[in-house]
Amino acid sequence: MRMPARPQNVHQARLLRLLRDEGPRSRAELGDVVRLSRSKLAVELDRLVELGLVEGAGLAASRGGRRSGIVRLAPSLRFVAFDIGATSVDVAVTDGTLEVLGHVSEACDVRQGATAVLDRALDLLGKLRDEGLIPRVHGAGIGVPGPVSFRDGMPVVPPIMPGWDRFPVRDAIGAELGCPVLVDNDVNLMALGELHAGLARSVDDFLLVKIGTGIGCGIVVDSAIYRGVSGSAGDIGHIRIDDDGPMCACGNAGCLEAYFGGAALARDAEAVARSGESPQLAALLEAHGSLSGEHVAQAAAAGDPASVRIIREGGRHVGQVLAGLVSFFNPGLVIIAGGVAGLGHTLLAEIRSVVYRRSAPLATGNLPIVLSELAGAAGVVGGARLISDHVFSPPPDPRPA
Amino acid sequence: MRMPARPQNVHQARLLRLLRDEGPRSRAELGDVVRLSRSKLAVELDRLVELGLVEGAGLAASRGGRRSGIVRLAPSLRFVAFDIGATSVDVAVTDGTLEVLGHVSEACDVRQGATAVLDRALDLLGKLRDEGLIPRVHGAGIGVPGPVSFRDGMPVVPPIMPGWDRFPVRDAIGAELGCPVLVDNDVNLMALGELHAGLARSVDDFLLVKIGTGIGCGIVVDSAIYRGVSGSAGDIGHIRIDDDGPMCACGNAGCLEAYFGGAALARDAEAVARSGESPQLAALLEAHGSLSGEHVAQAAAAGDPASVRIIREGGRHVGQVLAGLVSFFNPGLVIIAGGVAGLGHTLLAEIRSVVYRRSAPLATGNLPIVLSELAGAAGVVGGARLISDHVFSPPPDPRPA
Repeated sequence: MRMPARPQNVHQARLLRLLRDEGPRSRAELGDVVRLSRSKLAVELDRLVELGLVEGAGLAASRGGRRSGIVRLAPSLRFVAFDIGATSVDVAVTDGTLEVLGHVSEACDVRQGATAVLDRALDLLGKLRDEGLIPRVHGAGIGVPGPVSFRDGMPVVPPIMPGWDRFPVRDAIGAELGCPVLVDNDVNLMALGELHAGLARSVDDFLLVKIGTGIGCGIVVDSAIYRGVSGSAGDIGHIRIDDDGPMCACGNAGCLEAYFGGAALARDAEAVARSGESPQLAALLEAHGSLSGEHVAQAAAAGDPASVRIIREGGRHVGQVLAGLVSFFNPGLVIIAGGVAGLGHTLLAEIRSVVYRRSAPLATGNLPIVLSELAGAAGVVGGARLISDHVFSPPPDPRPA
Repeated sequence: MRMPARPQNVHQARLLRLLRDEGPRSRAELGDVVRLSRSKLAVELDRLVELGLVEGAGLAASRGGRRSGIVRLAPSLRFVAFDIGATSVDVAVTDGTLEVLGHVSEACDVRQGATAVLDRALDLLGKLRDEGLIPRVHGAGIGVPGPVSFRDGMPVVPPIMPGWDRFPVRDAIGAELGCPVLVDNDVNLMALGELHAGLARSVDDFLLVKIGTGIGCGIVVDSAIYRGVSGSAGDIGHIRIDDDGPMCACGNAGCLEAYFGGAALARDAEAVARSGESPQLAALLEAHGSLSGEHVAQAAAAGDPASVRIIREGGRHVGQVLAGLVSFFNPGLVIIAGGVAGLGHTLLAEIRSVVYRRSAPLATGNLPIVLSELAGAAGVVGGARLISDHVFSPPPDPRPA
């Protein structure tokens, strides 16, 4: 199988990213942005057309002289994203501009192991293929719920993913699809999704805090994911809040996740339900046998004071950790996302209150703290963004000039 | 006054940085590294010689064919660094490879205000000039003990620098010296010093924690200072340790600096001296009228258990904050520096113990935590590195290719 075409130099790569992010553009407009002479630009665009990555799309309105030709990414370009969560798998296909053309999602326990889960994802991709959505795959981005060696394209000692440790996800899927593949942590992909299509579109340096079963953070520096030296950057779930706090699954006491996140929330909600403090939560517990963040949100919306208190306390603890990270990192934006973020504005208000009170004043002067507006799409858009950044890059080893 | 010469393109800039960091090299060796053809390399080097930035230095040993000419940075290149501290000013001059040729330091209270302190720094530079060390200044890097707007070249609301808020340090010194000038936070310059000449020479992503009167952190991402969106990144002195902790000068309770740093150390040492718990500290207090970190180090070295305890507790609190930052940032190295770092290995051992116990295991797998070995030189070497990176850069607005 022949690998799909790639740009041949830095100019072609830049043109492809521009057309991805800004949509169709006239040759004159592209010439203004990329600072190539007219003739050089024509050479590079012609080569991209020959490679099947770009095509003509009519003439632009005149800017005074001859009308300039409009170009766009080839409509047949396809990127694929797998967003593998603890309890779900999402598969999506996008065009070259990362518009989602098809998206399927189903429940799936990551603890079934790498082979079973990846087979299932490939099945779902087959469904999208059957719908005629995928003439050819130009690249695939894959997110998994644990630490990843980005360089090696595999999970490394992931705590909630038995059977995945050092499984060669990138190479296995690459061989299956015959295209470039990259693997990253799921929270990093959500951050890339926000960078591409969400509230962070014009922000170079920001944090995305995902509050789901666990709590993690995506760090974007200069419009790219910062992964740290061993790929574990953003692992904030076990930052200390109080040495005398509740025991955490990690063996230390008083970690953020011992106070908040899906697991702690279920524990606290069930305790409150059993204590008789909240008739609403007690009724939900009786009806469902167990409680989750959604039930707390539901009870809070129905006016249950105990549920509102649980949410507020959770927000306070997230805020205590985030305040320190904001002082340290001085981001331009903080986005709160993930299932528990569904607790909404009560949670957000408490996080904001603590961060604005406790962070360095210079760091919060112009700092928005917001809820994600992308919901479930952030991960798959981020996966497509990750692999398209890679595919739309110049070759790694340029020849001497 | 004519501004000093600068490189004209990215190849020349790369060659200058190579010669700065690696020392004299043969044309053949440079050709291997920069991936230019022999003739293109010759053109760029000839141009750098014409500009007076580079010169020939004899012939290299043969690699089999004709002997290749050695080139080096012009020995007349000079960078100047001002390292302005809370209570001191350091002025140094380096050659093009950032070797310190002259370094003067004297006590100076930053609260005298910008004009008085900068005039004093210029006087000290005059001394070095009188020694014949400075044929011409090619650039100056300036560090100040507070937050800086790097873009504007001025301090912004610096808490311990009355009279400096928005003083145009860069432009004032630039006009005085007739060369490019950059201004940054003093902790950032120390981090750059470690990157250039210290333990971080081969580390892309690391943290430098300075424990002096206050506590700050320099953040290096991909071998460059990360400053955050408003220049306050690394401001870790007021990260929360415990809401019920001692009141901090900032108005919150339980900040890191309320527990440790020069001011808290003096407070705790004097309290211990007065309590009768430590005869050594009591004697030092009687002799000097007040106590500092140096006295605590002295008493600890003489075997005073109370002083050792104070140092250990300080290390524990630094470790508690640093553990969270290590989980978040996953650095390749942490360097402890600053006056209080003189407390030495007792302090370091306690910091290490807490970080290795409390940080995410993947983040500490290969993480060295070390004491700086540069002592007082880190700031001025960092200042020279900052401005040389700027001077040895291609022009900001390249012409169309």
